[in-house]
Amino acid sequence: METIAVQPDLFVKMATGEWERQNNIFNKLLASLSDEQLAKEIAPGKNTGHYLVGHLIAVSDAMLPILGFEEKLFPQLDNIFLKNPDKSGLQKTSLPDLKENLKAVNEKLNEHISSSSVTEWFTRHMAVKEEDFTREPHRNKLNVLINRASHMSYHLGQLALL
Amino acid sequence: METIAVQPDLFVKMATGEWERQNNIFNKLLASLSDEQLAKEIAPGKNTGHYLVGHLIAVSDAMLPILGFEEKLFPQLDNIFLKNPDKSGLQKTSLPDLKENLKAVNEKLNEHISSSSVTEWFTRHMAVKEEDFTREPHRNKLNVLINRASHMSYHLGQLALL
Repeated sequence: METIAVQPDLFVKMATGEWERQNNIFNKLLASLSDEQLAKEIAPGKNTGHYLVGHLIAVSDAMLPILGFEEKLFPQLDNIFLKNPDKSGLQKTSLPDLKENLKAVNEKLNEHISSSSVTEWFTRHMAVKEEDFTREPHRNKLNVLINRASHMSYHLGQLALL
Repeated sequence: METIAVQPDLFVKMATGEWERQNNIFNKLLASLSDEQLAKEIAPGKNTGHYLVGHLIAVSDAMLPILGFEEKLFPQLDNIFLKNPDKSGLQKTSLPDLKENLKAVNEKLNEHISSSSVTEWFTRHMAVKEEDFTREPHRNKLNVLINRASHMSYHLGQLALL
């Protein structure tokens, strides 16, 4: 095992920094798009901007329990924006309401993220069993953040088409 | 400064793992799309799949010098897929050639990535000056990898529309 003069808090800063960077892009993009633009499909026959916005918020909200912070704030988003596709026929939460939800979720997430210790980031996330985590220690909370930042980037590439 | 029982090689594994995961998705997606599909625009008036594929390969190729590994293998891609937009009128490298280029770039990158020591990952990347790096130690080589994985994910979300 190589020993180096690097503090683990640097890596936490890199991973949380990437997550914040993606969230800032999301917030700016959302502020720049009108409800009419968001109602459109990102490409013919594909998801609407409205659906993708709800989807990203539902995924962020689900990070609260998976990171062991607290329960989801808006569990009702799951059925509309995670478990079912855009054209499910389900009534979508309105864009103004979604924007309020996003603000609340981000506030909670930021609060918990900034107060988590380095040690906590390297503990298992709530969707991995203790015995699996012993074998696969990379399945920690920080890895969830890295993965969700990529997921957000994936859909931001689509939202940017609007 | 908090001291924890986490080995720095775990961070490296998490970041390189995310990069590999995005590359695998790219390779699978590319194998599943025909040249006809890739010739299409991802949405009306937007970039073609062909351009985005060249763009991603040019960005990966540019990682070789920025990570201090070696010179770019295909510097001619820069002008077509980085410095100029899709509709520049420049003759694009053909898709069969691009696929060969991708294979060569990934082989080189993987070779260097797997042989880099943990210490090396936390040294500055080649686009940051030494004096800036002293103040901002998160601008290291591993951070380039994290950033490029997000960038790839962004465009994979677009390519998936084809």
